[in-house]
Amino acid sequence: MNIRTLEPRDPNFEARVRDSFARQPMMRLLGAELTRVLPGLTEIILPFRGDLTQQHGYLHAAAVAAIADSACGYAALTLMEPGQEVLSVEFKVNLIAPAVGERFVALGRVLRSGRTLTVCAADVHAEQSGSGKLIAAMQATMIASTFPSHRTGFVAS
Amino acid sequence: MNIRTLEPRDPNFEARVRDSFARQPMMRLLGAELTRVLPGLTEIILPFRGDLTQQHGYLHAAAVAAIADSACGYAALTLMEPGQEVLSVEFKVNLIAPAVGERFVALGRVLRSGRTLTVCAADVHAEQSGSGKLIAAMQATMIASTFPSHRTGFVAS
Amino acid sequence: MNIRTLEPRDPNFEARVRDSFARQPMMRLLGAELTRVLPGLTEIILPFRGDLTQQHGYLHAAAVAAIADSACGYAALTLMEPGQEVLSVEFKVNLIAPAVGERFVALGRVLRSGRTLTVCAADVHAEQSGSGKLIAAMQATMIASTFPSHRTGFVAS
Amino acid sequence: MNIRTLEPRDPNFEARVRDSFARQPMMRLLGAELTRVLPGLTEIILPFRGDLTQQHGYLHAAAVAAIADSACGYAALTLMEPGQEVLSVEFKVNLIAPAVGERFVALGRVLRSGRTLTVCAADVHAEQSGSGKLIAAMQATMIASTFPSHRTGFVAS
Repeated sequence: MNIRTLEPRDPNFEARVRDSFARQPMMRLLGAELTRVLPGLTEIILPFRGDLTQQHGYLHAAAVAAIADSACGYAALTLMEPGQEVLSVEFKVNLIAPAVGERFVALGRVLRSGRTLTVCAADVHAEQSGSGKLIAAMQATMIASTFPSHRTGFVAS
Repeated sequence: MNIRTLEPRDPNFEARVRDSFARQPMMRLLGAELTRVLPGLTEIILPFRGDLTQQHGYLHAAAVAAIADSACGYAALTLMEPGQEVLSVEFKVNLIAPAVGERFVALGRVLRSGRTLTVCAADVHAEQSGSGKLIAAMQATMIASTFPSHRTGFVAS
Repeated sequence: MNIRTLEPRDPNFEARVRDSFARQPMMRLLGAELTRVLPGLTEIILPFRGDLTQQHGYLHAAAVAAIADSACGYAALTLMEPGQEVLSVEFKVNLIAPAVGERFVALGRVLRSGRTLTVCAADVHAEQSGSGKLIAAMQATMIASTFPSHRTGFVAS
Repeated sequence: MNIRTLEPRDPNFEARVRDSFARQPMMRLLGAELTRVLPGLTEIILPFRGDLTQQHGYLHAAAVAAIADSACGYAALTLMEPGQEVLSVEFKVNLIAPAVGERFVALGRVLRSGRTLTVCAADVHAEQSGSGKLIAAMQATMIASTFPSHRTGFVAS
């Protein structure tokens, strides 16, 4: 899919995405920043911090997954209808190399944007002394929901 | 596999797992506790906290994934050789219901323990007023490594 | 979730599932049989055949995935509304041990049945001389659709 | 990663990959052809056939997964040492659009080639009347093994 030709359904998509990101306490706790917001694509940057590490001093896999999942979710949201919110249905991440670096850059992109479901992918690069290295790849499914009805989106009957 | 019959290769497995968990700054940041450590099975509990939420006030998917991944990894480590460490190769999580609750309980178990790779699964339940609800399921691959050689485990040539 | 208490929305669920399975040419090509159909649970059996193998003579991962995916999909369908069909959104399979055996048994079960999405898991065991061994585990997302509208389910408007 | 600069460890990689593919009865059963074999990249083409479909007449998800998994596995094998074989550890596939077309093209590529594990991704496009459409995306982990020792690769000692 040529995501550059995608027309957002909501002309106000960037403000909506940035507003949603700003209301995520978990992103603040991690210190993640939403940098780029384009139709079908977002970038999230996480500076290294000692309290985000695992037992060997690498960035914890959960922090890697956190920014990749958010980059996927917000890439999906850029293409959703006004008034819709985004929730993660599932994601899978391959941790490709040790997460060693000064900062970590997650780039999320939409593979397919549907009325209900959006399929996304994200790469995470570790940056050190100006050079980058791929450390993780994610494939994820996102769902559009209208709060608060999504509370029961998965509930039987 | 009947995990109750699994013989740990390291009689000191519980202390080794608890020590490794204690050296994870990310788990401290989240406030996660390692409660049960049995051969091929671990339990991690995460009390709800407002700074771990996403934009709707639910526990963030990244926090859900964090405890599920750690429960898988430490379940794998209970069955590894003395001196080995565990790293996540990949994990996939389905977010089954909104993460609403007072605390979240991840139960990780080993499906298959090999010399190099271990396949694990984890369930996460949200507990509220004494009742529990399944909110997430994970399937993960872990790798045994001997620090620091695992730094280059994925490096070509 | 206690799937034994699940009430099918369609009293005719078993016939509907068996009829759908019978209309899958791919299952016939592989020689797979749908054996058990219960609310939220199905079993598919695949006898070993030389033309289903990979280069080492094991059952091919694609054949393992085929019966696991179908067991998940039909488990989901047992709980869907009359008139709905099921499509796979995504699945992830861990190939836990070499697929060596006389026949392969996939057991699919519903973890959560929602109006739109159903989350399922499946195990595949290889049976040889009366004993079974876990060879694969799957986690999958299924979607309910009303043919032919699902043709455009993923299409951006 | 710029896969064009990858140096195969085995100058004879193409013949080794083509020979392994030719020894896969399952690929013959499906009618799949291995078309391109480059360092870190392979292409597999599957012509549509009525006996490869599911209940709506689309190509079955298992056939889609079969060619994506094989494209990943053989992409991994192009970069492995002489004498090594490849086995799938796990794969996850998102089925992005209905698999309707005259033929299906899976392109597998290596994201990271390690001594033991290789991380790969594959896209599958459906081709109809000369135009192509993305219908599936896979992320997979492959393992290098030396037959027959890999038979016990996952077995606990």
